[in-house]
Amino acid sequence: MPVRFYFDYISPYAYLAWTQIHALASRHGRDVEPVPVLFAGLLGAHGSLGPAEIPAKRRYLFSDVLRTARRLGVPMAPPPTHPFNPLLALRVSSLPMPAGQQRALIDALYAATWGGGPGVTDPAVVARIATSVGLDGDAMIAQAGTTDAKERVKRQTDEAIAAGAFGVPSIVVDGELFWGYDSLANLEAFLRGEGESESESDHALRARWEALPASATRKLSPK
Amino acid sequence: MPVRFYFDYISPYAYLAWTQIHALASRHGRDVEPVPVLFAGLLGAHGSLGPAEIPAKRRYLFSDVLRTARRLGVPMAPPPTHPFNPLLALRVSSLPMPAGQQRALIDALYAATWGGGPGVTDPAVVARIATSVGLDGDAMIAQAGTTDAKERVKRQTDEAIAAGAFGVPSIVVDGELFWGYDSLANLEAFLRGEGESESESDHALRARWEALPASATRKLSPK
Repeated sequence: MPVRFYFDYISPYAYLAWTQIHALASRHGRDVEPVPVLFAGLLGAHGSLGPAEIPAKRRYLFSDVLRTARRLGVPMAPPPTHPFNPLLALRVSSLPMPAGQQRALIDALYAATWGGGPGVTDPAVVARIATSVGLDGDAMIAQAGTTDAKERVKRQTDEAIAAGAFGVPSIVVDGELFWGYDSLANLEAFLRGEGESESESDHALRARWEALPASATRKLSPK
Repeated sequence: MPVRFYFDYISPYAYLAWTQIHALASRHGRDVEPVPVLFAGLLGAHGSLGPAEIPAKRRYLFSDVLRTARRLGVPMAPPPTHPFNPLLALRVSSLPMPAGQQRALIDALYAATWGGGPGVTDPAVVARIATSVGLDGDAMIAQAGTTDAKERVKRQTDEAIAAGAFGVPSIVVDGELFWGYDSLANLEAFLRGEGESESESDHALRARWEALPASATRKLSPK
């Protein structure tokens, strides 16, 4: 079974994971299926805040991704604006196209976002990027505006939510969810067959966690 | 300079990090200073939700910590209740005592929480645990009820917030913040002197991130 990789260009962690997921999956004979989703849709579904929506976390976030990028030897720079509207890039990336070109397109759109490029909100820029990887950029921009293309990203986002995803990147393989760049080590252990977390006793522990009573709850102040 | 380790017993990620931080710090000739803080206080200060407060994230969280614990060879089981009130354990752990005993006490309280033990909300259990590591458990429970002991945990929590912390574990060393079990690899690179994120150009990138304009914002629905 392939590895389904749910991502949004808005997330630098999804970018970092994208730079590693192909080598990781191929070490274990797995293909990667990229699935563009709207991160804001996941947050909305769970009533949760994105990391860049809490000032102290937003400040920390870029230090963290920069440190990881330096460790990995991957380019990293802030995009021209953030947050930005990723829908055009997500819709273009979701159009039917050969897998090799889709991967090259996502590489190039990520480089434009987090690799020091011009961002991916300007249709002319996105068209040029698509054309640079051998696709018909102008036709794709037009096609991305159709109801069909819009519905596809919505459907993909709903699929991610149904799979239990609440953030990006989310990776689903053999029915198991892995969230975040930081889950890649656990994903690799799982693909290596060290899926002890799937053992019967670990299943029992997970079930116990889900049924666990609270003995204290935090009063949430209305925001 | 020592590594300051801000933690709360409520967090399984802080537990995982606690099992690794001493070996990590000592590889680089650093001491660890454990600083008990109230995670709920950090969340309140930032108007943010804890991972266990979003149902899909709560469900995922335990799978993730179980996978990491299996990979590390560390015991992991849900405590009897969660969330629970960690204040007694935090206050007892913050009382003045020799560093070696404090480390043994925290080890034992974490084992009682995430290592399959009886939890740390019952004063008799906490007293017994303190006594088992050579401290006067009954005296410590009494002392933990004093204004001084309560103020100490509050002060430590405020110190963490002032250092930019919004979650646990948070690790501060040489003025740099590292958040979460997952930041240990970046912390190790930093202690190894690969602090390229402190280079002038990385400083400029971080400054650019902080000043970055938004070109889209998410409408937050009132909860």
